[in-house]
Amino acid sequence: MQIKVSDYIARRLLNLGIDHVFGLPGDFNFNILDSVIQAPGLTWVNCTNELNAAYAADGYARINGYGAVVTTFGVGELSAINGIAGAYAENLPVIKIAGVPKTQAIKSGALLHHNFSNPDYFAFEKVYSNVTAATAYLDNENTIKSEIDRVFDIFIKEKKPVYIALPVDVCNFIVDDTIPETIIKSDPVNLKNAADKITELINNSKNPLIITDYLMKRFRLQNEVRSIVEKFNIKITSMIMGKGLIEEDDRHFIGMNFGEVAEDDYKEVYQDFDLIIGFGTLFSDLNTLGFAVKPDERFKVEIQTDYVIADGERFENVYIIDIINTLLNSNSLQSKNPPASNIPYIGYKPSVPSDKPIVLDEVFPLLQDFLEENDTVIIETGIISFASSKMKLKKGSNYLSQTLWGSIGWATPAAFGASVADKSKRTVLFTGEGSHQLTVQELSNMFKYDIKPVILVLNNSGYTIERYLSNDPNDVFNDITNWNYKKALELFGKHYKYHSVKTSNDLNRALNAAKEEQKDNLVYIEIFADKMDIPEIMKKSVAGVKK
Amino acid sequence: MQIKVSDYIARRLLNLGIDHVFGLPGDFNFNILDSVIQAPGLTWVNCTNELNAAYAADGYARINGYGAVVTTFGVGELSAINGIAGAYAENLPVIKIAGVPKTQAIKSGALLHHNFSNPDYFAFEKVYSNVTAATAYLDNENTIKSEIDRVFDIFIKEKKPVYIALPVDVCNFIVDDTIPETIIKSDPVNLKNAADKITELINNSKNPLIITDYLMKRFRLQNEVRSIVEKFNIKITSMIMGKGLIEEDDRHFIGMNFGEVAEDDYKEVYQDFDLIIGFGTLFSDLNTLGFAVKPDERFKVEIQTDYVIADGERFENVYIIDIINTLLNSNSLQSKNPPASNIPYIGYKPSVPSDKPIVLDEVFPLLQDFLEENDTVIIETGIISFASSKMKLKKGSNYLSQTLWGSIGWATPAAFGASVADKSKRTVLFTGEGSHQLTVQELSNMFKYDIKPVILVLNNSGYTIERYLSNDPNDVFNDITNWNYKKALELFGKHYKYHSVKTSNDLNRALNAAKEEQKDNLVYIEIFADKMDIPEIMKKSVAGVKK
Repeated sequence: MQIKVSDYIARRLLNLGIDHVFGLPGDFNFNILDSVIQAPGLTWVNCTNELNAAYAADGYARINGYGAVVTTFGVGELSAINGIAGAYAENLPVIKIAGVPKTQAIKSGALLHHNFSNPDYFAFEKVYSNVTAATAYLDNENTIKSEIDRVFDIFIKEKKPVYIALPVDVCNFIVDDTIPETIIKSDPVNLKNAADKITELINNSKNPLIITDYLMKRFRLQNEVRSIVEKFNIKITSMIMGKGLIEEDDRHFIGMNFGEVAEDDYKEVYQDFDLIIGFGTLFSDLNTLGFAVKPDERFKVEIQTDYVIADGERFENVYIIDIINTLLNSNSLQSKNPPASNIPYIGYKPSVPSDKPIVLDEVFPLLQDFLEENDTVIIETGIISFASSKMKLKKGSNYLSQTLWGSIGWATPAAFGASVADKSKRTVLFTGEGSHQLTVQELSNMFKYDIKPVILVLNNSGYTIERYLSNDPNDVFNDITNWNYKKALELFGKHYKYHSVKTSNDLNRALNAAKEEQKDNLVYIEIFADKMDIPEIMKKSVAGVKK
Repeated sequence: MQIKVSDYIARRLLNLGIDHVFGLPGDFNFNILDSVIQAPGLTWVNCTNELNAAYAADGYARINGYGAVVTTFGVGELSAINGIAGAYAENLPVIKIAGVPKTQAIKSGALLHHNFSNPDYFAFEKVYSNVTAATAYLDNENTIKSEIDRVFDIFIKEKKPVYIALPVDVCNFIVDDTIPETIIKSDPVNLKNAADKITELINNSKNPLIITDYLMKRFRLQNEVRSIVEKFNIKITSMIMGKGLIEEDDRHFIGMNFGEVAEDDYKEVYQDFDLIIGFGTLFSDLNTLGFAVKPDERFKVEIQTDYVIADGERFENVYIIDIINTLLNSNSLQSKNPPASNIPYIGYKPSVPSDKPIVLDEVFPLLQDFLEENDTVIIETGIISFASSKMKLKKGSNYLSQTLWGSIGWATPAAFGASVADKSKRTVLFTGEGSHQLTVQELSNMFKYDIKPVILVLNNSGYTIERYLSNDPNDVFNDITNWNYKKALELFGKHYKYHSVKTSNDLNRALNAAKEEQKDNLVYIEIFADKMDIPEIMKKSVAGVKK
């Protein structure tokens, strides 16, 4: 069938399971937005600004698999770019579509708004080429369809952001609506050799361990990883960015991989493995708690997006989905003996609340206890991130953190986007007030879309992480403006409950109340803590992060 | 003297008259911020997010001449880029400094936060090279000083943004503190020829007209333009982006140049000129009210940053400051006869307020009446921008609008920055609620820095300009979330007065009350208008803007 270009793009989004598109209108994207709002099954979500839209799409993609952002030319697309760059860093497929002026204006170099005094219609595509896997500028009538299909192909294969610039008039051009199949096919010889090598290593190992991480989430391999662990009786640990992929009460799960800053019982278990297998791992500074997790000589297998390293040999063009499935279906891979019974992972031990001024280490046990099955937990960057990842999640939970890119402000809009992606799950957001300030207005969309998260905001009078990392904790740039956060709720919405927390007893009461309240309300819990209070695990990690 | 690199940069900022630096801290910019807070005369201003910081620096530069923004690597710099691109488009010198990781990390490609999983330490400089006049990455020990001086030289000459990436460790390297002189020197032959040609044209003209515009503001040529007009008795009109440069009660000022959508009396006067001289003009879509201002065959002189066009001839390497001064000091340029007495520019005629639901055309006469000498007036992009520029300003006023770049959300943080630049002036901000939502949190800094602007927020239930420009005014993407704006004041600060305005009588009362209230308060006036109400002049311009 022949359809309009913008309708074809909407069709391609729907085809990937995208049902909400985030962004802001502008006079160069109206035709695109009309296609979005008219496509059955596709809902347009106006965000409060473009950065928030990109963060929301990032949060949405973490749950849904893919996300989409539409902005206008120049101004809108540049405001969104940090969010898209974050998705690029963390391997999240978020497509960024910009509505740009008519081809005639582009050709004539017309002096239009959202451009420079010496117009450059291609500057922003160039900008985006640094933070996306592919870009397409649809100003050539003859290649519109092939260019769209080219970037979607990369989008699907690499699970990374791509960028499309779509001129106003081109939206109404006509293309064939056939969606070509994207074929991800490994080099068969390399795939076989890689699988054989891994099989040999595991079969020769007495006690192998899988470290799972973010790429397993991105490629939606949760079931496959669980099946491998189960079928071959292999134990498993997780990096922070991989948290939530493996169920934390799985009998093969030995706990979070905190390396040198882990508890002694974890370290004891960890040292006994003789082979370590990386499933989509990333050894970045914060994902390793400040390089506390170190791949040692036992780390002999590394499975990445499109290559495998096994026993020092690198196998190119071996795609993650293929190698995981090959291993899962392997007949030569031998199941390990039932592993020595694990100490089940418990995360934090229960703690007894008190009426003393709260310290952060009291928050995590109480919050862990509050978490339910199927929760979506979103953790902001900062002093809470390492400690939060220790909390034990219940079955069916999602855990979202932007550990590599680490852009403060991400969590609030990401929580909105994640909630939109699956309204059946309860959303629990934990953020610091410093980060919250950057993107606070997206709370208004939570109210508009009747999302009822439980939001914990740590108010510790500034950027506490930076007090530890900067030359002087009292440097004025670590202070922020003082807000009366309760009023944010009155500004943005109607159905909310607010709790002020100064002791762990307060927090306990607030969380208990929240269980009922969150059925009909956004629940907002403001925790007042000392400006130098940081979790124990963060204290141990500061030196490593500072490096 | 030998000083630290980051101290030298602080010194260069001070040398340009910069006394406030905007931005956010991050763990790669602490050393820079320490130099900023320790430099006598330099004040660090923590903004609520990086885009707001860039907008604030833009507003600051519009008043002060130069502005500066410091962010951290990757995340912070990308969040700020739309604001810097706007400064680039509108020819505002705002320097963007990013604190980046240590040179050792850069060289080794260390896997640190705020970077990609496949690290690229130069990606963000590449990004910025598209929206700045020059970039420098200070990772080469041997060229640190020369690179800093190179970009500052361009910064001063071109009055456009430049970018510096400064590694953590390089901040502490030692350089000579001598600031080399920046020499702006035109080609002497071309300068003379251009001046001669312009002189000839003016001397041969019976009735010449100067159109002044934004570049005269950027190169701080207010006094020179006024002197030329006075000395040679030449009449003058202004484009929107040039508004405020020439005093509006100057007897040579014939009013704002609205071209085909001007009032009849302006058109009558305008058609009688036989020579039109462009002083730093820009004929972009919105600066011409949708191409209603058209340079015709009388437009024979165009003075731009580094070239002049006169009678069809182009003179390269003739700098705006040199040509303006040459004309001003010319002995051969003859004064025109005293011009026929102008009808003095009155802007809006006084209107009589009523108790009927307010329409926008009632707002501008009342607001004009409210304006005082030495006000700084900031107007957001949207339906109010053309009509606002018709208001007559009193002596010593500044008028700020982002007419070319047109990024919604700019005005609120720009108002903050402009206020910081000159606290002796009263700030009057007029914005639409749609735009206000994008960057609302910068209100908190107005409270923190005890700035007491009068803020008018037009609440017309969405993006009204887009209702006119999109395919269907009722398209859902033109609606925004409904906020209780009064609560924003309670969220962010303490000393404020709020007025709800539904009639022009309400507005009149609110503005009258504001005169007293603004001495001790931020005054916030929310004007409720119909979602399809637009000013008369905008109605006339919509078709042209839509083109």
